[in-house]
Amino acid sequence: MRIGVTGADGFVGRAVVRCLIERGLGDRLKLVDRSFADPSGPGEGLAIDLAEPGAAPWVADGVDCLIHLAALPGAAAEADPQASRRINLHATLGLLEAMRGRRVVLASSIAVYGSSLPPQIDDSTPPTPDSTYGTHKRAAELVFGDMIRQGELNGMALRLPGIVARPAAAGEFGSSFLSEVFHAAKEGSPLVLPVSPDATTWLMSARLCAENLVQAALADISSVEAVTLPAVRARMADLVAALAAHGDVSRVSYSPDRAIERVFGAWPPLTAARAEALGFRADGSVEGLVATALAEMGEALDPCHPA
Amino acid sequence: MRIGVTGADGFVGRAVVRCLIERGLGDRLKLVDRSFADPSGPGEGLAIDLAEPGAAPWVADGVDCLIHLAALPGAAAEADPQASRRINLHATLGLLEAMRGRRVVLASSIAVYGSSLPPQIDDSTPPTPDSTYGTHKRAAELVFGDMIRQGELNGMALRLPGIVARPAAAGEFGSSFLSEVFHAAKEGSPLVLPVSPDATTWLMSARLCAENLVQAALADISSVEAVTLPAVRARMADLVAALAAHGDVSRVSYSPDRAIERVFGAWPPLTAARAEALGFRADGSVEGLVATALAEMGEALDPCHPA
Repeated sequence: MRIGVTGADGFVGRAVVRCLIERGLGDRLKLVDRSFADPSGPGEGLAIDLAEPGAAPWVADGVDCLIHLAALPGAAAEADPQASRRINLHATLGLLEAMRGRRVVLASSIAVYGSSLPPQIDDSTPPTPDSTYGTHKRAAELVFGDMIRQGELNGMALRLPGIVARPAAAGEFGSSFLSEVFHAAKEGSPLVLPVSPDATTWLMSARLCAENLVQAALADISSVEAVTLPAVRARMADLVAALAAHGDVSRVSYSPDRAIERVFGAWPPLTAARAEALGFRADGSVEGLVATALAEMGEALDPCHPA
Repeated sequence: MRIGVTGADGFVGRAVVRCLIERGLGDRLKLVDRSFADPSGPGEGLAIDLAEPGAAPWVADGVDCLIHLAALPGAAAEADPQASRRINLHATLGLLEAMRGRRVVLASSIAVYGSSLPPQIDDSTPPTPDSTYGTHKRAAELVFGDMIRQGELNGMALRLPGIVARPAAAGEFGSSFLSEVFHAAKEGSPLVLPVSPDATTWLMSARLCAENLVQAALADISSVEAVTLPAVRARMADLVAALAAHGDVSRVSYSPDRAIERVFGAWPPLTAARAEALGFRADGSVEGLVATALAEMGEALDPCHPA
């Protein structure tokens, strides 16, 4: 089986590639991204802009299962909705079309829930996206789910929570402060968090995210409904305290921004029963999440040499 | 202001064109369809397949407000999901892109609610489409709503209930029996209804549907959320009884099909507050609906001579 990965040179993509190599699939990879920092990396590399007309058949060619990660992040999508339609919607739909008869794992996002969140979220919570990013992710989920229902494709969409810790310069994510706090702790540098200590968010380490994505790719199960992954629900103050055990958080402070708190800091308790029944996992605790995320910050820049 | 209408030679399209002519806008129309039964009809006609690449800019050219009706009906969409993606999804998205900066009224459908309906539907009911047609209509609603929110377009999507009475040969609609019963009553012909006498459905006459669509086109209001139109909620037996006052229903009988009853015959009470606040209307009663629909069955084939 040949596995394709889009966004393969991105933050989550590199973690997925490491995970696939660990599972002995390093010689069956077709890695797709706009460009690669290290062209001598593992697998077959295809440098292509997915938003270009005609890109999808090139990507799908010879691929039995595609893990589609490439996306324009939330803040960038909100600033340029037309680009988000090209990348997050049309490029995705084009790939689904090109992959007919085969398997796709689609990286969706908890952004589909929008910012008016109910007191608790479970598999019956209807998505009510209110951002450009969340809207396009939801539209792609819908079309993908119908193709699965119709037997045109198999696979599933996984809704990812906040993945940490992204590289320091990942500012295109509105949630980038959730990763910046890891860098601040590691370096003892100053950081003003735009949320309150009581802000609650859903997090997952890149390593566990990659394991869940790879498991979805290798599984034999399809799901018409998108699957919301389990996540660690962390209070910001608890995350900072867990980081204090590994670094210096003395220069981390809080200056809540109401809009950011509403979108990224008000996540209610989550019951991810469907995902758990399918074997997907969350990091065990805030402390475990922090340890895993800090450990992989060293290896994150190097896709060639899995830990 | 120049008004474009796609699907202009279809059943609803002709009613919309009649309504626009009645309002004195007959010389400001750009009518778009795959072909026209009467090429000498009103307005500028553009015969084009919206699923062809490059069609959208031709349609949008010179149009200030587009009423987008063209669609692959539900049963046909379910049988050919790829064609539904081309027509109901990509052609629609292409038109939205081509109409940026202007106004669009999108004909959506109550099919977005799916077939597992709650005991009551109102503006807070989340769409949970489970058909190809409903899924693609919902995806288009979402993308359109986000473009309105972002200020790229203005206008709104209207969710249409079952529109009666379509021409006798409109078999591509799973709900075609709802129109066939009008023809059966008019002609005294035999018809086996695939639902029970107690089946409940949401109906609107084509005339009122057209008035609502034209009102949405001429209004100055936009809505990020799709607007579910009010409708007459009719028991099948009451619809047949109302038809009996105008025709012969003695050869109409019932043989319920569980799947059809579930999708088309289990519509709960509807509170369409958002639509009513915007001035959209339903036919006043089953009897009024029947009278209006029967009256327009004669004129439906002729777009040139409004009643």
